[in-house]
Amino acid sequence: MSYECSLERMTDKIQTMSKFGDAGHGGITRYTLSPEDNMARNEFKKRMEAIGAIIEYDDVANMYATLPGSDPDAKRIVMASHTDSVKNGGNYDGILGVMSAMEVLEAVADQNIPHKHPLTAMVWTNEEGSLYPPAMMVSGIVCYDYLPEDIKGKFKYEDMMKSKSVLDGESTFQQALDATEFKGDKKNRLNQDDYKCMFEIHIEQGPILEDAGNDVGVVDCVLGMFNYRLRFYGQTVHAGTFPMDKRQDTLFGASQAICYLHEEIDKLGHPELVYTTGELVLHPNVHTCVPDYVDFSIDCRHESPELRDKVLEIVKGCADKQWAGCKCEVEKMWNRDTVYWDKTLFGYVEDAAKESGYPYQVLHSGAGHDAQFVSYMMPTTMIFVQSKDGLSHCEPEYSTPEHCTEGATVLLNAVLKADKE
Amino acid sequence: MSYECSLERMTDKIQTMSKFGDAGHGGITRYTLSPEDNMARNEFKKRMEAIGAIIEYDDVANMYATLPGSDPDAKRIVMASHTDSVKNGGNYDGILGVMSAMEVLEAVADQNIPHKHPLTAMVWTNEEGSLYPPAMMVSGIVCYDYLPEDIKGKFKYEDMMKSKSVLDGESTFQQALDATEFKGDKKNRLNQDDYKCMFEIHIEQGPILEDAGNDVGVVDCVLGMFNYRLRFYGQTVHAGTFPMDKRQDTLFGASQAICYLHEEIDKLGHPELVYTTGELVLHPNVHTCVPDYVDFSIDCRHESPELRDKVLEIVKGCADKQWAGCKCEVEKMWNRDTVYWDKTLFGYVEDAAKESGYPYQVLHSGAGHDAQFVSYMMPTTMIFVQSKDGLSHCEPEYSTPEHCTEGATVLLNAVLKADKE
Repeated sequence: MSYECSLERMTDKIQTMSKFGDAGHGGITRYTLSPEDNMARNEFKKRMEAIGAIIEYDDVANMYATLPGSDPDAKRIVMASHTDSVKNGGNYDGILGVMSAMEVLEAVADQNIPHKHPLTAMVWTNEEGSLYPPAMMVSGIVCYDYLPEDIKGKFKYEDMMKSKSVLDGESTFQQALDATEFKGDKKNRLNQDDYKCMFEIHIEQGPILEDAGNDVGVVDCVLGMFNYRLRFYGQTVHAGTFPMDKRQDTLFGASQAICYLHEEIDKLGHPELVYTTGELVLHPNVHTCVPDYVDFSIDCRHESPELRDKVLEIVKGCADKQWAGCKCEVEKMWNRDTVYWDKTLFGYVEDAAKESGYPYQVLHSGAGHDAQFVSYMMPTTMIFVQSKDGLSHCEPEYSTPEHCTEGATVLLNAVLKADKE
Repeated sequence: MSYECSLERMTDKIQTMSKFGDAGHGGITRYTLSPEDNMARNEFKKRMEAIGAIIEYDDVANMYATLPGSDPDAKRIVMASHTDSVKNGGNYDGILGVMSAMEVLEAVADQNIPHKHPLTAMVWTNEEGSLYPPAMMVSGIVCYDYLPEDIKGKFKYEDMMKSKSVLDGESTFQQALDATEFKGDKKNRLNQDDYKCMFEIHIEQGPILEDAGNDVGVVDCVLGMFNYRLRFYGQTVHAGTFPMDKRQDTLFGASQAICYLHEEIDKLGHPELVYTTGELVLHPNVHTCVPDYVDFSIDCRHESPELRDKVLEIVKGCADKQWAGCKCEVEKMWNRDTVYWDKTLFGYVEDAAKESGYPYQVLHSGAGHDAQFVSYMMPTTMIFVQSKDGLSHCEPEYSTPEHCTEGATVLLNAVLKADKE
């Protein structure tokens, strides 16, 4: 038997949550543990208390709302995502996963749906890392012992506590944690003893579902990626007084390198490969000075480690060339292998999608999510919902209430399948 | 008869002034009216009072130290430059002109050199505009009535007072002026009735003198220039989830445009033409996002208006092209014609340089200086001193004490020629 979530209730949650951090152009800025984030968290608490869920916080301000199941010895099934956003982000990234988890619990409570396992809706703290870097900070902390060695180093608790606000450059994540009413007990953290598995719903953040006319995505993996930094060293000289042929212009050099990377990587001929030079730092960044320093990021994602290696070879090769007279260094920031979701949970989601009758497809996740770190600790999987125009991390980000509700319905039925196991 | 300045006294001034705002790598950060700038200003005041000069301030905190001449009706001859610096600038840009003016007055006092006209050493406020933009702000204010119409608009007194600190984005130039002890009376401003002409010594900020083995430059003009902004509009999408062929990547587009500009402008085949893309703004500037907005500056300088127009045609043509799927807009920030110095004063400097026996040459100034605005109000000219490696606006900026003293000696003798007129 298949259950359904409520379009009306989902729409109301979307409208309500979209107010908290309204940035004025259709989206939000809702940094973790900010007053705006607290509004979203309080809304979560209020609505979950209203259906009789037990509310708990852990020491890194993750929130857990749990409806007990019929078997007192059964482990919890958790549905989790985040309430925080990037600067001028949208109303769906993260919060859709929280709202869907809430919706599942509300549907279960409203329709008295029998279930053996306790069902938990969870809010992750600081997934975006947009105020206190890095992204996925708190799932990194909570899953620390299970992470692969080369990722581990990035998420040491002590280091994370010292992460400084990108706004004031001074206040720390530790201070934000100490100040929040949502800080609780470390023993409440997501863990293997008390939890059986985790589901996360997210918007696709790309145009694949929309282009294919599908509402829901059954996600099989998170693409492997690497993130490198190319650094260019030249010489600051005066724009008006220094002859062109003697200059070492790092911005010209970096521009040449960006064009070169596009040309060479595109030659590999893999249209599903994505790579991005999204961040650039320039010194002194003054219109009357030739810049003596530029660095930029390159982020590359694909399922195949062999193809990623080929791209990496091109990236690393930049260090052997001169760019407008400038030296180039290539530095590894991090990389990760493709993470495949638990096959059993994936099957529940696919079956639930099939039974629902909604148009769906299997697809990869190009973005990282907290679920990815959790997958090292316990069985985990993800569901995607169609994103209008594939837009995300920007204010026009949009998914229809219908698609959001369909996603929640697939989640509900997949969770109930996991509950029966 | 030819007089000489003192190497010992000049060296002492250089060493003393270099302490005020010491940025730790050989240079200084000395924003206008900052505590560090006040130290330099007090040093100026102390040393000028020590030789009996009369100290005056005007309403925009310019400082004037005057040694009376033998003719009570004669107008003043002023030697002026600035004490402020860019961030992590050097120990010579600006302050060399102030120290040379001080040195001339000290030599005159020390050697009892007869002179008819009062001789004034002057400190301009906020030449760099590095804390409160724009550059040459205060000479723009003081010479306002004499400026060409299209420059005028940039330097309205009321607008300048509202200029906000680039550090805190809030405090204004007006507030800095109101707080300084160096604010005086508007009637003390440099003016046509009381002043006969102005000289300014500056470091070359380029490698031409050094490459030619010349110590001193006799400057004939400030090169005409234009400053435009190219703006690129695309779409922010997620780095991991959005296919390459649907992207509108503004940083890729801007990189292509920078490479295109170099290629096309270099085809014009004028090695003495200089152009610079020194400033770039990127949004959202996050490694996981394709940037939806980039703008960069292009600064171009050459004596010939015809050649500048040819370059401008290339720059403006960028708006007619697509750059990685992004729209481009080209916006004029400002331009200025080549400003030629007063021929008589130029002759005095050239004669003084010739008589000194120092290796010298005639050259253009590629950089803008306060002298340029003053030249619309009264006869004005400039002298350059060799810059090691042509470096400027950076901490390694360097000129030898010997070259600095030679420059001051040329200034002294040129001023005495003007005094005899």
